[in-house]
This record gives sequence, structure tokens and C-alpha cells, in this order.
Amino acid sequence: MALLVVGTVAMDTIETAHGTAERVLGGSATFFATAASNFTRPRLVAVVGEDFPAEYRRFLESRNIDTAGLYTQPGGKTFFWHGRYHPDMNGRDTIEVQLNVLETFDPVLPASYRDSTHVFLANINPSVQLKVLEQIERPQFVMADTMDFWIATQHDALLKLMTRLDGISLNDSEAAMLTGTRNMVVAGEKIRKMGPRFVIIKRGEYGAMLSTHDGVFTIPAYPTEKVIDPTGAGDTFAGGLMGHLASEPEHSIGRLRRSMAYGTVTASLTVEGFGVERIKDVTIRDIEDRLYRYRSMLDFWSHP
Amino acid sequence: MALLVVGTVAMDTIETAHGTAERVLGGSATFFATAASNFTRPRLVAVVGEDFPAEYRRFLESRNIDTAGLYTQPGGKTFFWHGRYHPDMNGRDTIEVQLNVLETFDPVLPASYRDSTHVFLANINPSVQLKVLEQIERPQFVMADTMDFWIATQHDALLKLMTRLDGISLNDSEAAMLTGTRNMVVAGEKIRKMGPRFVIIKRGEYGAMLSTHDGVFTIPAYPTEKVIDPTGAGDTFAGGLMGHLASEPEHSIGRLRRSMAYGTVTASLTVEGFGVERIKDVTIRDIEDRLYRYRSMLDFWSHP
Repeated sequence: MALLVVGTVAMDTIETAHGTAERVLGGSATFFATAASNFTRPRLVAVVGEDFPAEYRRFLESRNIDTAGLYTQPGGKTFFWHGRYHPDMNGRDTIEVQLNVLETFDPVLPASYRDSTHVFLANINPSVQLKVLEQIERPQFVMADTMDFWIATQHDALLKLMTRLDGISLNDSEAAMLTGTRNMVVAGEKIRKMGPRFVIIKRGEYGAMLSTHDGVFTIPAYPTEKVIDPTGAGDTFAGGLMGHLASEPEHSIGRLRRSMAYGTVTASLTVEGFGVERIKDVTIRDIEDRLYRYRSMLDFWSHP
Repeated sequence: MALLVVGTVAMDTIETAHGTAERVLGGSATFFATAASNFTRPRLVAVVGEDFPAEYRRFLESRNIDTAGLYTQPGGKTFFWHGRYHPDMNGRDTIEVQLNVLETFDPVLPASYRDSTHVFLANINPSVQLKVLEQIERPQFVMADTMDFWIATQHDALLKLMTRLDGISLNDSEAAMLTGTRNMVVAGEKIRKMGPRFVIIKRGEYGAMLSTHDGVFTIPAYPTEKVIDPTGAGDTFAGGLMGHLASEPEHSIGRLRRSMAYGTVTASLTVEGFGVERIKDVTIRDIEDRLYRYRSMLDFWSHP
């Protein structure tokens, strides 16, 4: 099995109550692949500019990430985002965005990627997500992330993409926007009727909900006392989830639930540092340790 | 063991997207006692006016609630609340409040209540909460609920009360207000330093968090597709919790966690109807059935 992610590799300037990090490595594909690399060797598809630091590329390679699909656009500049979090860490304002190389991102997959079995289409234009998917010979498990902007501006492309997906992830306000209901149990059912056989509704610091034919599964976030920078938590969650899922052939609902738990604890590590600072040296052992504590935090049935 | 609750018995007019209920039975002590009556015979302390319908009193008695402490103030009118929920059910506006008999509520406990072992001080003035507590001979387990209004206006009385409590419950914005931190793991620790050995932070549709010396326990709400009226959910949660707790002598952390699960599923029944409509005929069997489904919804470790 082989896991592919397409998304962004970015340089981020991030301001939180705990300080400022300037032009650090970020982007959805970065967080996803770094998280997934604890479980498997993920294949990365993204574009950067000539200004992309060699040390950032070396970092990705050092994490056992396949960067054959990390394309450097000649004369281009790397996607840049500058954000400032509100004191409560729940909201944030975008101070500056420079799309740069993202404006013309039209990924062509390396031949070595075409036999990927597991695919994560991180939050980019649904038309580009579809174009990547079409280059894969026999995808077995495809999940996409999306957001309000695409629901509003690329509705048809998104609906078309959804018929090709196993799963989709989005946050609760986006699920409400897509379905017209604020009830997440009902929203999950409605979205499944649009194509995906499962829906993951992300609720930030409150965790996530899974909707399948089997019913609803709900999982709280790992309660951490050290939230330094929430950037990348959602993509880390997806990376832990799909990394764990792609590491074994079994794809039961139970395994999907366990994968969400792995995603949850991996994401809880990410937020403890700026950018990838905290997860850059994380190992599967750290994740298993935190999962053990997490299970204990959730246990009401057998806890003494 | 005997469980006592002091709080409000009210008449509520409630508007939600699902309709309007006029002058229905409500109030914190009503929801708490109705929920707790599935587990034990709760003792109710509250005041109503002469306008309080006989059928509402009969309902409370029919639920095996001890109403010796339900005092009718001569010439008084029952506390009245009129609220309108926002379409998303998360927020609400108060259209009208008539405190009426609550303005001079100064509860004197019936002699038969003074040997109560378990006490729930629902969300009323902390000075009144303290006054009730002082009338109980040897309380073994005391929990209080509070809110932003008392944190702002009765800070000293609240701090005094807190030194007498086993546990306190409040919502996340109130915990932030009381401690100056938005991080709920840290807020729980800070509140425990004010007296209570455990803190329950309520998060509405997202569930609740428990902070004890043992660490953090987190429990999501039961995902229901049918939210008709959220009124009373928090007090039902507390009633299920303390009813279950008071039904057996053991008071371990594990039992507290299990009690929170009982409270959670009982609260999920309340919101499926206006006022007490849905829980008025509920039995322990209904609660156990839902708890069984709830455990399955949360299970990621052994789910097939």
C-alpha cells in the first residue's frame, strides 16, 4: 500500500499569544506528510518556488517522505501565509496571503506515484483535487478535505469530486453550509448521500465526529494544557489517520475509528509548538504513549 | 444515602425552531430532580407561587420526588422565564424574566431533609446556596452549579462557598472568566485550588470535561439528531450524575466518570422534547439502553 497526499507546502509567519514564528515551514501537505511518516512513507505532491529553503526540503526527506512530487517552479515564489491568532486560539485573522506558485498549480504526478492506493486530497481547489485523482491508476481509499470557500465558489466541481470519494472531512460550520442543517448527525447523513461513504466533521478543540452507514462515532480532542500554535492541527489529524490506515490492509469501521484516535493524538502534539517544531522529531513511540494516556482519559467504564 | 437539590421550579415559555411551549414546567430543580428520580428519591427545595398548577406538583410527586421542601409563598407568583432559541439552538435570547417569589427566596429546610448526604446546589445566588448547605447536618458529597452573573456580582460569596464543595460545575466561558485562562485543562486545575476537589466544565453540545487530582477526563455529548429544546440539559446532566452517584456508597473517580456518562445520556433525552415532556416518562431502562448505544458510539478500541 502507498499513501499519496496533494496539498500545499508553504512558508508561514504565525503570531500567537506565545510569540511569533517567521517564515517557518507549513502547508497542508507538510503537516499531513510529517504526521503520516510515523506510519508509512508518504508520497508528497506540491509546488514551491525557487526561494524554498534547501533545509526545509531536507527536513521533509529526513522524515522519510517521498518528495519526487515536490515540484520547484522556475522563477516562482513559495506560497506564503501570515496569520495572527486571537488570544483564545480559537479564531485567527489572515494578515497576508501570497498565493505565488499556487496560482498556476497544475500537478502532474511522477510515474512512480501512479500506483498509490491511499490518497489524501488536502484542502485545495476541487478541480485540482479531481485532476490529481484522475492520474492515479487504481485508488483504493480516497479522502478529501475541503472548506467554505470551495463550497461557495466551486460547488459543482466539489459535488463531482464527492462522487469519487470514500471520505470527506470538513468542519462543522462548513457541514452546515453544505447541507443547510446545524445538526451534525443529520448533516453527516446528508453529505453521505452526496457520495462519500463516510464523513468526518472536525470540531477543533472539541474533537471530531464520524458518520458512516454504521451510525455515529464521536471522539473528543486530546486535552492539552500547552497550545502554542494551532496551525496544521487538522492536516496532522488527517495525516495520522491515513498514515495509520495505510499501514495495514484492513479497512473496517473499527479500524477507521482507531485511525481517528491516532490522528487525534498526533494533532495534539502539533499544537504544542510553532509549525512543525514539535512534531519534527516525534516517533511512533511518542504517539503510542500519548494514545495510551488518551484512552485512559476517555475511559469511564473500567476506570477504578 | 439521600440526595437533596435546591434550585428553581419555574414556568417557562420557550420558543425554538420546532415551535413554542407556553408556561410549561421548568426550573433547575425540576430538571435535576426528574433526572435523579430514575436512580433515587430526591428531596426538592424550591419556592413557587399560588399560581403554580396543581398538576405540576402532582407530576413531581408522581416521579417519586420528595416535595416536602417545595414551599408555596402566600400571595406570590411563580418564577417565570420566556426565552427564544436561535435557529442553531446554541444561543438564546431572554424575552422576559419575572423573578417573583425568587426575589425573597430564603429556604428553610424541612427537618426530614437535614440528614441528606448528597447535595446539589443548583445555579442560584451563592449566599443562598451556602445558607442551604449550612442547614444540613453532615453532608458527604456537595456539588454546586454557578454562572457568569454570580462570578461577576457575588465573587466573595462564591469563593467562600467553593471551600465547602466537593465539586463545582460551570461552562467553559465561565471557567475562563473565573480563572483568566481559556485553556480548560489549566482552568480546571486553578479552580480546584479554590476548594473543590473536582471541577466539571460543561461544553454544551460538545460534552463535558472533569478535572481531578487524577487528571482530566473528557466525555462528548450524546449525538442526537432530534434537538427540540435545549432547556434544562445542564441540570438534567447534573441530576443523572448525582442520582447515579447517590444510589451507591462508592465514590471513586471511576464512579464519578460513570456518573457523568449517566448524566450525559439522560440530558440527551431531555433535549428531545419541550421542557420535561420527553423525560417525564423515562425509566432507568431507557437510560441504560441509551448508555449502551452511547458506549458503542465512543468505542474505538474494540469496535469491529
